[in-house]
Amino acid sequence: MKVVLGIDIGGTNTKFGLVNHSGQILDKGSLKTGKFENASALAAEIKLKCDAYKHQITGIGIGAPNGNYYSGCIEHAPNLSWKGIVPLRQIFEAQFEVKTVVSNDANAAALGEMQFGVARGMKDFLVVTLGTGLGSGFVANGKIIYGHDGFAGELGHTIHDYEGRLCGCGRMGCLETYVSAGGIVKTLKEILSKHKHSSKLSQHDDLNAYKISEAALAGDEVALEAFETTAHILAKKLAEAVAFSSPEAIILFGGLARSGDLLLKPLEHYFEHYLLNIYKGKIKILLSSLNESDAAILGAASLVWD
Amino acid sequence: MKVVLGIDIGGTNTKFGLVNHSGQILDKGSLKTGKFENASALAAEIKLKCDAYKHQITGIGIGAPNGNYYSGCIEHAPNLSWKGIVPLRQIFEAQFEVKTVVSNDANAAALGEMQFGVARGMKDFLVVTLGTGLGSGFVANGKIIYGHDGFAGELGHTIHDYEGRLCGCGRMGCLETYVSAGGIVKTLKEILSKHKHSSKLSQHDDLNAYKISEAALAGDEVALEAFETTAHILAKKLAEAVAFSSPEAIILFGGLARSGDLLLKPLEHYFEHYLLNIYKGKIKILLSSLNESDAAILGAASLVWD
Repeated sequence: MKVVLGIDIGGTNTKFGLVNHSGQILDKGSLKTGKFENASALAAEIKLKCDAYKHQITGIGIGAPNGNYYSGCIEHAPNLSWKGIVPLRQIFEAQFEVKTVVSNDANAAALGEMQFGVARGMKDFLVVTLGTGLGSGFVANGKIIYGHDGFAGELGHTIHDYEGRLCGCGRMGCLETYVSAGGIVKTLKEILSKHKHSSKLSQHDDLNAYKISEAALAGDEVALEAFETTAHILAKKLAEAVAFSSPEAIILFGGLARSGDLLLKPLEHYFEHYLLNIYKGKIKILLSSLNESDAAILGAASLVWD
Repeated sequence: MKVVLGIDIGGTNTKFGLVNHSGQILDKGSLKTGKFENASALAAEIKLKCDAYKHQITGIGIGAPNGNYYSGCIEHAPNLSWKGIVPLRQIFEAQFEVKTVVSNDANAAALGEMQFGVARGMKDFLVVTLGTGLGSGFVANGKIIYGHDGFAGELGHTIHDYEGRLCGCGRMGCLETYVSAGGIVKTLKEILSKHKHSSKLSQHDDLNAYKISEAALAGDEVALEAFETTAHILAKKLAEAVAFSSPEAIILFGGLARSGDLLLKPLEHYFEHYLLNIYKGKIKILLSSLNESDAAILGAASLVWD
């Protein structure tokens, strides 16, 4: 049986899976992205792990931060240790000798949602991935919008505050420095330092988004305020994205989206507030219903089928 | 010979023309939009003016602010005196008994640029119309992006300053309250009131964008500062639109765009400054080379041919 190798390269983890044409994942694995000095080393390791399927793999789809559909390269990804331009397609085609398609990880997620998730049947929607960074995949007329250079959908690098936090891209105040796993930790630390709230969390803890989410669920006020602030900032930018693209729905995907109502409830409230009147009450915000690692793999694989 | 009636409804003027399939305008006219109590009165007047062509008109294309491609209505246009939902397609089809297509005026301009203007050969670009308001038409893969509700491209209603100027849409700080014919007048008045610059222009003059442009060309410092401020604000929002849509070029169209280098030079400077590194040096900002009233009419007519 023929299979496609779907690979999702993230700032923290790289997930891969062997997917058949019915969308079943026959086998899968995960690697720490930071462990690999370069993409060739990663490709070699994945090849080893997939050795049992080597005669069946007919194509490879890769979702990666700043992955460019046209060039097949990762270009200047702020959240990866591989700097500059990484010719990902060339590296994987040399290693596996099969056709390889590269795209932005968020575009892959959008394809995954359209084929297997909550975006089934939709033709105009936006997927926002909330993980190490903030990515977005933008579908119009049932097709991913790649733009002229293949980089469309960089919502994470629109600016929330021109005098704000330093971003990996070298500029100040990008949305992803506020709305991402790392961003909410910074926001929580700012709240702790400004106020004398009582909180189980402290500046010195080894904080992460998951811990903040747990504290918020237990009613911790500072953690709840961090979610509220994060939702408020995201709402403003999603309302802007709606003015530009008029989607049917916005689908939240990735680690921070798994915090569910903690993010969703304040987000819906602020989002409606900021929307232009012609859109009010019309745009759904949905949480991805797919198992995250499966969705990323399926999405990456569907780059080949698409 | 068969002709299409192209109509461009603007906040100030409504232009119409009879266009053949080679893109020649056989006849044209202009009316003051504000003179007509409702769209039916406008349709009746246009019909009278086009009486000589009544047996030749095979279709009508209309570009209008907040014109919705799917519903055929103008919906809550802040810059028109006709409030609420205006069933434009229905009104013109009843009056003329031919197929009528309605769209956003900026989408019509984008089609006009793609067929006859500087966007010929481009598949991914953005047209920004700078007139009474600020509109935008967004083309990807060679097609206008209408979005799910038909309202995509409302760049004029993205927010520059959440505590800023009151917009016709009821919210505060929309881009078009700063970057438009009226916006630059307000900016100039703010500069005059804040500083003791010497300027030929005064608070009490019957100011308009054209007078500011003339003063700037004559070296008036306050007028030049008003253009610089306007360009700076627009640059930020165009950089955001690029992050989202990755266009090959941005084309400026309409009254304020006719001020040429006064707007373009500072705009290019700030735009490059604000662009995410992966786009720097790659996105052209172009001025429409089409005669404005012709382009709007041709664009509206091409809604039918499209």
